Amino acid sequence: MTTDPAVPGVSADAVLNRAAELDARDPLAHLRRRFVEPGEDLVAYFDGNSLGRPLTATREHLARFVDEVWAARLIRAWDENWMDSPTELGDLIGRVVLGAGPGQTVVADSTTVLLYKLCRAAVRARPGRGEILLDRDNFPTDRFVLEGVAEECGLRLRWITPEPGEGVTVEQVVANTGPDTALVLLSHVAYRSGHLADMPRITAAAHDAGALVLWDLCHSAGAVPTELDAWDVDLAVGCTYKYLNGGPGAPAFAYVARSLQPDLRQPVQGWMGAADPFAMADSYRPADGIRRMISGTPPVLGMLPMRDMLHLIDEAGMAAVRRKSVALTQYAVELADTLLVPLGVRVASPRDPDRRGSHVTLDHPAFRAVTAELWKRGVIPDFRPPQAMRIGLSPLSTSFTEVARGLTEVRDALLRAEAG
Amino acid sequence: MTTDPAVPGVSADAVLNRAAELDARDPLAHLRRRFVEPGEDLVAYFDGNSLGRPLTATREHLARFVDEVWAARLIRAWDENWMDSPTELGDLIGRVVLGAGPGQTVVADSTTVLLYKLCRAAVRARPGRGEILLDRDNFPTDRFVLEGVAEECGLRLRWITPEPGEGVTVEQVVANTGPDTALVLLSHVAYRSGHLADMPRITAAAHDAGALVLWDLCHSAGAVPTELDAWDVDLAVGCTYKYLNGGPGAPAFAYVARSLQPDLRQPVQGWMGAADPFAMADSYRPADGIRRMISGTPPVLGMLPMRDMLHLIDEAGMAAVRRKSVALTQYAVELADTLLVPLGVRVASPRDPDRRGSHVTLDHPAFRAVTAELWKRGVIPDFRPPQAMRIGLSPLSTSFTEVARGLTEVRDALLRAEAG
Repeated sequence: MTTDPAVPGVSADAVLNRAAELDARDPLAHLRRRFVEPGEDLVAYFDGNSLGRPLTATREHLARFVDEVWAARLIRAWDENWMDSPTELGDLIGRVVLGAGPGQTVVADSTTVLLYKLCRAAVRARPGRGEILLDRDNFPTDRFVLEGVAEECGLRLRWITPEPGEGVTVEQVVANTGPDTALVLLSHVAYRSGHLADMPRITAAAHDAGALVLWDLCHSAGAVPTELDAWDVDLAVGCTYKYLNGGPGAPAFAYVARSLQPDLRQPVQGWMGAADPFAMADSYRPADGIRRMISGTPPVLGMLPMRDMLHLIDEAGMAAVRRKSVALTQYAVELADTLLVPLGVRVASPRDPDRRGSHVTLDHPAFRAVTAELWKRGVIPDFRPPQAMRIGLSPLSTSFTEVARGLTEVRDALLRAEAG
Repeated sequence: MTTDPAVPGVSADAVLNRAAELDARDPLAHLRRRFVEPGEDLVAYFDGNSLGRPLTATREHLARFVDEVWAARLIRAWDENWMDSPTELGDLIGRVVLGAGPGQTVVADSTTVLLYKLCRAAVRARPGRGEILLDRDNFPTDRFVLEGVAEECGLRLRWITPEPGEGVTVEQVVANTGPDTALVLLSHVAYRSGHLADMPRITAAAHDAGALVLWDLCHSAGAVPTELDAWDVDLAVGCTYKYLNGGPGAPAFAYVARSLQPDLRQPVQGWMGAADPFAMADSYRPADGIRRMISGTPPVLGMLPMRDMLHLIDEAGMAAVRRKSVALTQYAVELADTLLVPLGVRVASPRDPDRRGSHVTLDHPAFRAVTAELWKRGVIPDFRPPQAMRIGLSPLSTSFTEVARGLTEVRDALLRAEAG
């Protein structure tokens, strides 16, 4: 048994034994074998919250797609199923991870472009209201898009600043919405702190002011369940390359509640969102339903990998995925308290799992240099300025042993950084 | 030797013998073996102008990408090369097919979204000018996008109507531009007629009026060479799933002349187009150069297949590709005259190859039904209302024998349709 000289009373073997026990009790542990082996140099992947790992099924499906669909069916495949793929895949995401009935979710574009289109459509649907409410913890693209929309539409941005390590509260939303609020844009899970917002109560509060709410689900979709229909959510966008393992830059998804669809007009009027694309009409008439949110040709190849992950999540069930996610983040917090807090690290994510997504953020002034060191050793968290390291724990591909090995390496790298 | 009863004097054997001779003399014929075998049912693929066929290299590169890059390098690949891929791949397109020096082409989004962004940026760069000039032969998405942009920016659309089977002329552009023209949007090759516009002279005419010009290269990129830099083109967008074989819904490209870049601001302000994406800054500052045209995360997987085709085109050289394209369309017109015109078909594309892209459009009232019949028999043109059949001839994947077999089937299907 190795005794750790820097953190008295903590043995490396004890840490690994406890992790092995947790893995043995994990009912989803066997699903981890469905992912492509990452290569021998990888010790711990802590960035599934940024880029999910590929499934072995995806490798085979891509090759079969080239041979059996693209090469063999050629243009005929548009009629056979590609044309419907944005809504068919959208419905799958809706059912498996969002709590959304069919006909309300579509896969298209990037998160940024969908945010732009939905924000423009939303403020157009609330004429005469001059303000958009958002919070400073939103991801940069959300803030940047809204800056642009506010400028071009002559609207004001009203900012909420969450308490450090916390997120936007219902009270803050109540205090900052009113008859002039057109739209509220918030993140379900904050990209830095991992704070999980109270979506149903915040949505209700915004509705009390007559505002529409657009939720950014990028950092929760596939890890934290939602009930978009039951919670009366208006609009949502999300990313598919994080917990939905769609591959780098995979297309995004948008949700628009059915009742809102007839009133929403988005500005990027393309043929694929038109009522009858192949009529090649003289002027644009938007399609009925969610399809009107599409602009260009569906990115068919980029839509393939996420299907495999959606099927895997469906097999596990979102409730079980969430239980595993909570167990992993809980364990990471525990280990951070044991191994890292004594070295000056601060846990910057909420400690209450009900208020936390699937990543744990740790703060330390040395983390920029430490993250670079860790990458070289096959431990891959990410770094967010000024001093945050995010430990992203993708529920179906991360083991407890991986968390133990990785956080032990974080400790060792910190010790080396301090010694150096 | 079979004698054709319907078209006296034309023997099927003679047609095929002549095609075989043309194939034997084709210096690029051997490159056709680089494409995935399309399956035994396919007789002739005439829709490479809509969806190019996959290369065998693409199948292998996708599988290797999953194993060796996505799974193995994970998030590290963003630093290693994914971040630069939109401009690196853009530069490759610029060099191989566009005649554009580096730093002016970017791969992103869809054609529709890039059209929207570039149009918005262009009219913003010409304040005080109230009109956009475009022509009725533009593809629907171009017209629909401009309808939307005109409405939101308070501009008028001015329409040119080309003569049937012809395209926009220099004279029409001169007559319709003036001090109020902000932007001219035209297609290099018209999607219906296949008319090839005189890009250098039309660009100069629009510049004489102080307007910017945006060229849609969707139906020419990879089949018809351009010299964007030499011709002083301002802006261009194009598609990569047609003659660049990028796969269904592959991302599009945009060209912005270097001198214009500092003055162009596009409206979809995303983090990837910001000056320093990972600074997670408080407010948006556009990146220098062409990168500011990007919005969301680069669609890395969707960018892979086009690379293989760009390398193949580079190997052949765009001048040779164009020679093959002209030979193929010339041969298709000849065969149409022999086999189809006697049955009432009209060649609706320009007969002068210097004014024609890489597809030949044929008109006949029975073509809607005939196209459906042909698809069942493995002959795949496409149909555009009210009565056009497009014979798209992708230079590197189409043989003369394929043209002969396919157009013979068109004749047979027409004869059956008339008999039925």
